[in-house]
Amino acid sequence: MELFYSKNISQGICSLDAEESNHCIKVLRHRRGEIINVVDGGGTLYKCEIMEDSPKGVTFNIVERIDNYGTHSYRLHAAVAPPKNIDRFEWFAEKATEIGIDEITPLFGEYSERKVFKGERVERLLISAAKQSHKGAIPTLNEAVTVKDFILAHSSAITATSSTPVTSAPWDGITRLICYCDEVESLGLSHKITINQALARGAKDVMLMIGPEGDFSRSEITLALQNGWTAISLGESRLRIETAALVAVSSVYIANI
Amino acid sequence: MELFYSKNISQGICSLDAEESNHCIKVLRHRRGEIINVVDGGGTLYKCEIMEDSPKGVTFNIVERIDNYGTHSYRLHAAVAPPKNIDRFEWFAEKATEIGIDEITPLFGEYSERKVFKGERVERLLISAAKQSHKGAIPTLNEAVTVKDFILAHSSAITATSSTPVTSAPWDGITRLICYCDEVESLGLSHKITINQALARGAKDVMLMIGPEGDFSRSEITLALQNGWTAISLGESRLRIETAALVAVSSVYIANI
Repeated sequence: MELFYSKNISQGICSLDAEESNHCIKVLRHRRGEIINVVDGGGTLYKCEIMEDSPKGVTFNIVERIDNYGTHSYRLHAAVAPPKNIDRFEWFAEKATEIGIDEITPLFGEYSERKVFKGERVERLLISAAKQSHKGAIPTLNEAVTVKDFILAHSSAITATSSTPVTSAPWDGITRLICYCDEVESLGLSHKITINQALARGAKDVMLMIGPEGDFSRSEITLALQNGWTAISLGESRLRIETAALVAVSSVYIANI
Repeated sequence: MELFYSKNISQGICSLDAEESNHCIKVLRHRRGEIINVVDGGGTLYKCEIMEDSPKGVTFNIVERIDNYGTHSYRLHAAVAPPKNIDRFEWFAEKATEIGIDEITPLFGEYSERKVFKGERVERLLISAAKQSHKGAIPTLNEAVTVKDFILAHSSAITATSSTPVTSAPWDGITRLICYCDEVESLGLSHKITINQALARGAKDVMLMIGPEGDFSRSEITLALQNGWTAISLGESRLRIETAALVAVSSVYIANI
């Protein structure tokens, strides 16, 4: 079953763009009167009857609407520092879409070597990955931000104090996880726990941060811990950024099945 | 820190092959008297002093030996049906090495489209991935086998009966997991559980099977269930073979941190 993507279908605009139209008519040879499956990227699948079978602009009528198509039972936002080799970030975005993710934010840390990120290719990959893995919703790719801005924008109103471990402090329901390589005990703010220990508390609404090759700085991790983030361990293996990010996404997915 | 690989170092042959020698001398410009790090692929790292700095054949003396270098605390053997696009299998092998795996077996199922597998490229990738992720042990790539032969070769002496769920039956200590897409209740042999439920029983010695695009056949899954394998779920997302395999490997890794 092939899915087509039409961004504006939910606003009643019943057409495919030139690229999707060409694929529909020239490659898959669909014709007027046939039923095609169109997703809106927001989570809804529409069964549509082709009215005009032009390879430059297919038009259709909506026959049936299926909400929450190929959705997952949790909410996940991963903020990941793009590695030097951008292919690896694209690979992460594609695989995370296949597994199930809602938002991706490219992150620049104090120790990031990469300070520029262009999103166009990743945007396209997210669409094709969502279509390929039969998901009605396409993950949102946010603008790149600094680690500190990201933390301040996603701070918990309820913050842990140095005397209470994060997992027993009051909690706003969002599990905020920062994957940090060094030990955090020396900072005197929190204890590092495993990702599964952190997810045992709550895995339905998760934000996670994966830092650059040079890891988060001391001031970044301190700011995170002060703002309701929990430092977690992804084990002893030396994981590349994109592998660490995928292991974390995979853990959230598995914790919810 | 750069690692070199020398298969025969544990037998006292203190030299690098032509490719590694060239990389050591021509690319990294190491010279006589310098210390390099050499792994044997079996889990041991040797600190070695270069005696002859020839780009065609470096020779060295062992200065120090570090056992269990970059090892993991579990044993994992993944048998995976190679997808049509072999790049995706190679990608899996590389990422699984980075995370931590001991053995990989390419699998041909009744519904496999791919019936041929050449291992040379994967072998090379396993070596470079192990070196890159600082692991002294290189995973073993076995010969490709059929699903049924694999099951019979890795059968539990103690098998579950239709009346006892696998998780409460007697157990030989090896967690054998078969990732099967359809429901298994209809086969009347076992209940399907989540991978984390299965790993909660034991995650130290794990074998797992990931089937081809067309899934395992009914007779393959029946044979597996009769031979001490547990059918597990990897959730509702439509995962490609290599993604499913990586999610499973990641789950075993995370269960052991």
